[in-house]
Amino acid sequence: MLQQCCQLLEDRLLKVAFIESASSGYLTSQFSIHKNSGADILLGGLVSYDPSIKISVLKVDPKLIETYTAESPQVTEEMCRLGQTLFQQADIVVSCTGLLKPGGSETTEKPVGTFFICISYLGRIYHYHYFLSGHAEQKLKTLTQKVADSIIALISSNQHKS
Amino acid sequence: MLQQCCQLLEDRLLKVAFIESASSGYLTSQFSIHKNSGADILLGGLVSYDPSIKISVLKVDPKLIETYTAESPQVTEEMCRLGQTLFQQADIVVSCTGLLKPGGSETTEKPVGTFFICISYLGRIYHYHYFLSGHAEQKLKTLTQKVADSIIALISSNQHKS
Repeated sequence: MLQQCCQLLEDRLLKVAFIESASSGYLTSQFSIHKNSGADILLGGLVSYDPSIKISVLKVDPKLIETYTAESPQVTEEMCRLGQTLFQQADIVVSCTGLLKPGGSETTEKPVGTFFICISYLGRIYHYHYFLSGHAEQKLKTLTQKVADSIIALISSNQHKS
Repeated sequence: MLQQCCQLLEDRLLKVAFIESASSGYLTSQFSIHKNSGADILLGGLVSYDPSIKISVLKVDPKLIETYTAESPQVTEEMCRLGQTLFQQADIVVSCTGLLKPGGSETTEKPVGTFFICISYLGRIYHYHYFLSGHAEQKLKTLTQKVADSIIALISSNQHKS
């Protein structure tokens, strides 16, 4: 699905940027490695792994992190919105927070393996919520496939509407 | 060597940030995945894959890219210097440009597989130049090991001098 997603982005001349936290650059790298040679679909990304980077570089309001935690739908949406400001030429911005390993803001309702994704496309922000198992790299591989699937679905769905 | 490098960063309370181009977030992700649980060594990173991001987000002078190409020691050094401005709390900034696949600025002197790395540490910028073979992900794995080796050498060397 990743190759299919990259091909679709290339065919539609769509550029993507990623704002990552828990996935720490993995999503961005996979959209570079697995794209066809000569394709030009990736603008770049910001890895705001430490919450201080969300505040200093991305300009997320510290109160939002304090209220909802760094790994929350609310902060993920704000990262997506601000990511569009940072990567102005991006047609699609994907933001991701979550709990790859223990030691974050995990709770019974939000266990390790929880990921929040937001995708900005055509002026709207779409929310996704996953629970993934396996070791760290397995979770990231599954996450990449799910993001690719979601981008394909969004592009296809909006095509049908137009 | 990556785990040893992450352990050394953790022991010395050193924080690292990455400014990536060809490696597109892979280095950043590996320093997150393979660190010990609870370690806090990674601030984050910027993936300036498209040259326009080097200019708009990182503030690299477009003339520098025009003169030397986006994949050059000169641009890599400037990315390292500006990366230190973006990630002010970073004790170590690693920047990387190169030619992972065909379609960039490759020449006979600078074939596909060429990578330029700069590492900023204790107020100095160190240059590295590699030629790596294998498919895209193999090159990135070798590159990660070489960066880890270089960081270990830099930290150890500076320790002996003090």
